[in-house]
Amino acid sequence: MTKTIFKTKSEGVNHMQKGKSSIAFEQPPIVASCASIAGKKEGEGPLGPLIDVVEQDEMFGTENWEQAESAMQKQAADLALEKGGIRRQEIRYLFAGDLLGQLIATSFGTVDMEVPLFGLYGACSTMAEALCLGSMTVHGGYADKVLCVSSSHFATAEKQFRFPLAYGNQRPFSATWTVTGAGAVVVAKGGNEPKGTPARITGITPGRIVDFGTRDSMNMGAAMAPAAFQTIRQNFEDFGVDETHYDRIITGDLGEVGSRILTDMMRQSGIDLKDRHMDCGMEIYNKESQDTHAGGSGCGCAAVTLCSMILPRLRSGEWKRILFLPTGALLSTVSFNEGQSIPGICHGVVLETCQ
Amino acid sequence: MTKTIFKTKSEGVNHMQKGKSSIAFEQPPIVASCASIAGKKEGEGPLGPLIDVVEQDEMFGTENWEQAESAMQKQAADLALEKGGIRRQEIRYLFAGDLLGQLIATSFGTVDMEVPLFGLYGACSTMAEALCLGSMTVHGGYADKVLCVSSSHFATAEKQFRFPLAYGNQRPFSATWTVTGAGAVVVAKGGNEPKGTPARITGITPGRIVDFGTRDSMNMGAAMAPAAFQTIRQNFEDFGVDETHYDRIITGDLGEVGSRILTDMMRQSGIDLKDRHMDCGMEIYNKESQDTHAGGSGCGCAAVTLCSMILPRLRSGEWKRILFLPTGALLSTVSFNEGQSIPGICHGVVLETCQ
Repeated sequence: MTKTIFKTKSEGVNHMQKGKSSIAFEQPPIVASCASIAGKKEGEGPLGPLIDVVEQDEMFGTENWEQAESAMQKQAADLALEKGGIRRQEIRYLFAGDLLGQLIATSFGTVDMEVPLFGLYGACSTMAEALCLGSMTVHGGYADKVLCVSSSHFATAEKQFRFPLAYGNQRPFSATWTVTGAGAVVVAKGGNEPKGTPARITGITPGRIVDFGTRDSMNMGAAMAPAAFQTIRQNFEDFGVDETHYDRIITGDLGEVGSRILTDMMRQSGIDLKDRHMDCGMEIYNKESQDTHAGGSGCGCAAVTLCSMILPRLRSGEWKRILFLPTGALLSTVSFNEGQSIPGICHGVVLETCQ
Repeated sequence: MTKTIFKTKSEGVNHMQKGKSSIAFEQPPIVASCASIAGKKEGEGPLGPLIDVVEQDEMFGTENWEQAESAMQKQAADLALEKGGIRRQEIRYLFAGDLLGQLIATSFGTVDMEVPLFGLYGACSTMAEALCLGSMTVHGGYADKVLCVSSSHFATAEKQFRFPLAYGNQRPFSATWTVTGAGAVVVAKGGNEPKGTPARITGITPGRIVDFGTRDSMNMGAAMAPAAFQTIRQNFEDFGVDETHYDRIITGDLGEVGSRILTDMMRQSGIDLKDRHMDCGMEIYNKESQDTHAGGSGCGCAAVTLCSMILPRLRSGEWKRILFLPTGALLSTVSFNEGQSIPGICHGVVLETCQ
């Protein structure tokens, strides 16, 4: 089979490059398989019955929280392969990341895979960053199958970014709750998709850093909403579409406060997202009974929601096309303590049903 | 212009995919421009006269070390564009990273670019990770030009990974000195390279994590040498070449101890690298007079050496083909204090002269 995958125009812009930032895949890579692992609290939330494995032990049988997060990544990766009937040797590259300094959950979680690793940091947007690069890699012919993994753990994140758990600090209502969970997605070459293939990745809109000067580390939704706004607008502009192009526009972990800011910003620019907008952070916990305040967050939030709820609804054909927009707050205790703002980033992935 | 860039064989492996891990670029992307910025100490070393800008103020005119590192990234990026006569708007994507938790040097250093960012973490291997993904992106037709940036700063790294500088701790001879420096490389579409183009990127060998169980954070060369060994062997195997294929095989920051381990491991597997091996960590400081013990390290080490010395020698034709192998020690104080080992990673990039 010989294919011509790009026809370069005289000005040097090829027809996969859409507008300023986006890429349209001519022969869309597919999500060949996916898996989600989460903790007890997430298992008690609305997505509980949809998550592949809910672990009751927050330590995942390990000695400390960081190892627990690594164990989740490994379990999610193994399960995604198993569900898809894919051997580890078929995975050519791994795109993975987490929230921890120097990506230690990923380093120790993926070492046994023995697959070349591209370590990624995009805060809670990491699953989208991985899907962008993974689908570019597969579509470019550099690999037939790649694995995209991301994770977060409530206890590793609190320890790193906020207070020791034993301190029992008060959390304002704008704060989110870091999801204990990991998601893994196998991206594979498209064409002749087998029945039951979860989705096709038809386009991406990698995002840029947007800094509106938010300095409240307990309100990350406010820090990320402008980045989500920017990426959604860029996606619409680049592909020449509007909100009606998508069945759902699904942000990562803006939570209640960030989601309100996003819908306000959209409305002010003349776009009413209405019921089309959904936020993984607001889907994963039960607001009334789970005391999670503004919602869920963390790399695991969007990853678990993607693998447990979004991809199945695309597989069933309930949704035809969605825009998946994990959002990241580029928060660090070092920059925060030095008085810096919290910039945001948001990468967009267009997922379509194979039905 | 219409090009066929991949011919998929029946078994689903295309001819850009070389062996288990590598990629050969059929129409090699080029290094269109590059720039290096470094601190006073690096300026006093052997590469001093070759570095574009040597800043005498370790604070780079900012209020703290992290901001100084961000300022270096920005300066390197701006200068690479300026030297190449390239407008910021021509850069479609940015691939960048540093050593700090949550990549704060990158977040604050690149925000003004207003270009979509793929944040990368590969410890000191980050410049190679960026070049791998950047060249795949350009060769795949997803962008005409991308920018790859990485940095490190002695003071931010010591603060994060080791002791407060004021503590004045003793450093063992196996310890390396984190380079204060940043490098920026513009990767662009190949074909009809203008005269003076620094180099072509003809292939890559992304590396996997290799963990030999090293637990000495003051001997990172030992932690990384097995990863360099693995990637070099993989490169030889995938491309069907041996050490004579390259004028130089240049590791990132193994330093004196790690380099000795690497050459020993190679010799035991029947390969004598002889004078072909070079290590950026051993090139950047004067061992006798600069008190840097085993050599230089940090994301900036390989990046500055690449932009100040390696690329110019390829541009002049002094070297025809080299294998660039930045190495990363996946060290974190959290995992280290929990008794974990220090895994290593090494990504390989094949650079050839345009002469």
